[in-house]
Amino acid sequence: MKDVASQAGVGLKTVSRVVDGEPGVSLETEKRVQEAIDALGFRRNDSARVLRKGRTATVGLVLEDLADPFYGPLNRAVEEVARAHGALLINGSSAEDPDRERELALALCARRVDGLIVIPAGDDHRYLEPEIRAGVATVFVDRPAGRIDADVVLSDSFGGARNGVAHLIAGGHRRIGFIGDHPRIHTATERLRGYRAAMADAGLPVAGSWVSLGSTEPDRVAAATRSMLEGPEAVTAVFAGNNRVTVTVVRVLAGLERPVALVGFDDFELADLLRPGVTVVAQDPATLGRVATDRLFQRLAGAALPTSRIELPTRLIARGSGELPPAA
Amino acid sequence: MKDVASQAGVGLKTVSRVVDGEPGVSLETEKRVQEAIDALGFRRNDSARVLRKGRTATVGLVLEDLADPFYGPLNRAVEEVARAHGALLINGSSAEDPDRERELALALCARRVDGLIVIPAGDDHRYLEPEIRAGVATVFVDRPAGRIDADVVLSDSFGGARNGVAHLIAGGHRRIGFIGDHPRIHTATERLRGYRAAMADAGLPVAGSWVSLGSTEPDRVAAATRSMLEGPEAVTAVFAGNNRVTVTVVRVLAGLERPVALVGFDDFELADLLRPGVTVVAQDPATLGRVATDRLFQRLAGAALPTSRIELPTRLIARGSGELPPAA
Repeated sequence: MKDVASQAGVGLKTVSRVVDGEPGVSLETEKRVQEAIDALGFRRNDSARVLRKGRTATVGLVLEDLADPFYGPLNRAVEEVARAHGALLINGSSAEDPDRERELALALCARRVDGLIVIPAGDDHRYLEPEIRAGVATVFVDRPAGRIDADVVLSDSFGGARNGVAHLIAGGHRRIGFIGDHPRIHTATERLRGYRAAMADAGLPVAGSWVSLGSTEPDRVAAATRSMLEGPEAVTAVFAGNNRVTVTVVRVLAGLERPVALVGFDDFELADLLRPGVTVVAQDPATLGRVATDRLFQRLAGAALPTSRIELPTRLIARGSGELPPAA
Repeated sequence: MKDVASQAGVGLKTVSRVVDGEPGVSLETEKRVQEAIDALGFRRNDSARVLRKGRTATVGLVLEDLADPFYGPLNRAVEEVARAHGALLINGSSAEDPDRERELALALCARRVDGLIVIPAGDDHRYLEPEIRAGVATVFVDRPAGRIDADVVLSDSFGGARNGVAHLIAGGHRRIGFIGDHPRIHTATERLRGYRAAMADAGLPVAGSWVSLGSTEPDRVAAATRSMLEGPEAVTAVFAGNNRVTVTVVRVLAGLERPVALVGFDDFELADLLRPGVTVVAQDPATLGRVATDRLFQRLAGAALPTSRIELPTRLIARGSGELPPAA
């Protein structure tokens, strides 16, 4: 920066103002400084500035799966709030692996992010305690943190699933299957809990063959779907635990002769254009992202708030698949 | 780190090995060091290490739109290659704004990323020249860099669009519409060029009302679709310039009485389950991401390669919508 100041014939402070986009510099001067910057190939080194000031105005977002369309709107909402606060958003994926989540979160903290938003893949977040004590504001989204006390913003998975299954029961179904994510995923077990509650509320037993949790890979889900559709206890309806499961179940059902009712947790693009339209229990990923990031910036602004759990309601959207009556 | 070494009763080098996960430390010693780290709340500051070594083992990815499902597989492929090379991936979005793209790319460089993969929103990348000269390997994806010489990996937009439109012409269509992205987006103009080439190859004139480029926002695209479907020159088929346009056109056509043929550029989830299934010119975003990142790491490994343009072919997938004959 000294070379730039010298070349432009201005003081260091002036160069600093131009580089940081601060006011108080005439257009003429700004132009001269910018030309000097270009001529010298000056590169701003935020790493050195970090050591001087301690703040990099950055938020880190740890997602679960970069290719899951559910996270798109969430990611974009986080970025928009961060940007409104003048912060940059950098994100990465845990690919649903707790070790990778830890590695990524710690690497982001090592780059001195101001705050961290985490969609947890694991269930033990004590590794983040030193960072949190050192001032990295942290908010968890979609599932709570494990073994530590921290803000969490999530949807009402239990209640939403219960409503979705109750909807099928109200339509006359008594044999209903549940296909969900890995049992170590909090949202999967909460939605299973909701399914069981709805069945119990209606006095309906749950056969062991009607519940299948595990990988959301299409092969696994398709096999589970076909399996619960055969035999003497074959189901007449399926509740799919998230959008990845729903999309595979839709494919399997499309290939069958008899109609099987379907309600899926999470809305997804084109769900209304399929025939039948897919009935879903919809979350609002953009609002999840926005509320979590607002919370993060409240903490960064110094608000001494107790940790909170913010639970957003879901909405049932009936489009046809969930209203098919039980096959004779 | 000196405090940790002192507490654990080992040398600084040993602490460094444990922190970096390097071999040559007994389990017993590693445990002692880890306990000292936990007790002291030691936080690794990559910013200081950056100044000492100059390398942060990180790749920056500048995407266009975090909520576009097309980028999911690309993003994940880049991350997998980066990870295989021991590098972290941090990404952000330009939200299709050239100024934001520049801001984000420079911010990532200021954090000393080793390499940068950019999906350009703008058409002037001279702002990156100082960074590239200083050693930040840069590869462009999906569209070429503007005003500078750099590697680019992209799909054959021109040829793919030409094939898609030729497919409609082969099915008997003579009045075909084209709806694409902003004209400042390279892929939009390349695909329009392909459309015009196919029409010219068949000796077919192109009416002005049949071509509409602009925002991919649903309202704009829906209005453009409806507009070209009315009047004396109404089209009998539409070529949609990318997945966002296709999805909106599908919705508009679903509400019509008469059949209108459709071919879209880019495949998308559930395209085959719609009725009719959507005929597409498919890219391979995962391969785009993988090839670009492989190229990046070749450069980072020191290979003195001339800049190259790698163009991947597209595939036409006929599912029904593109084979509808012209309405009488």
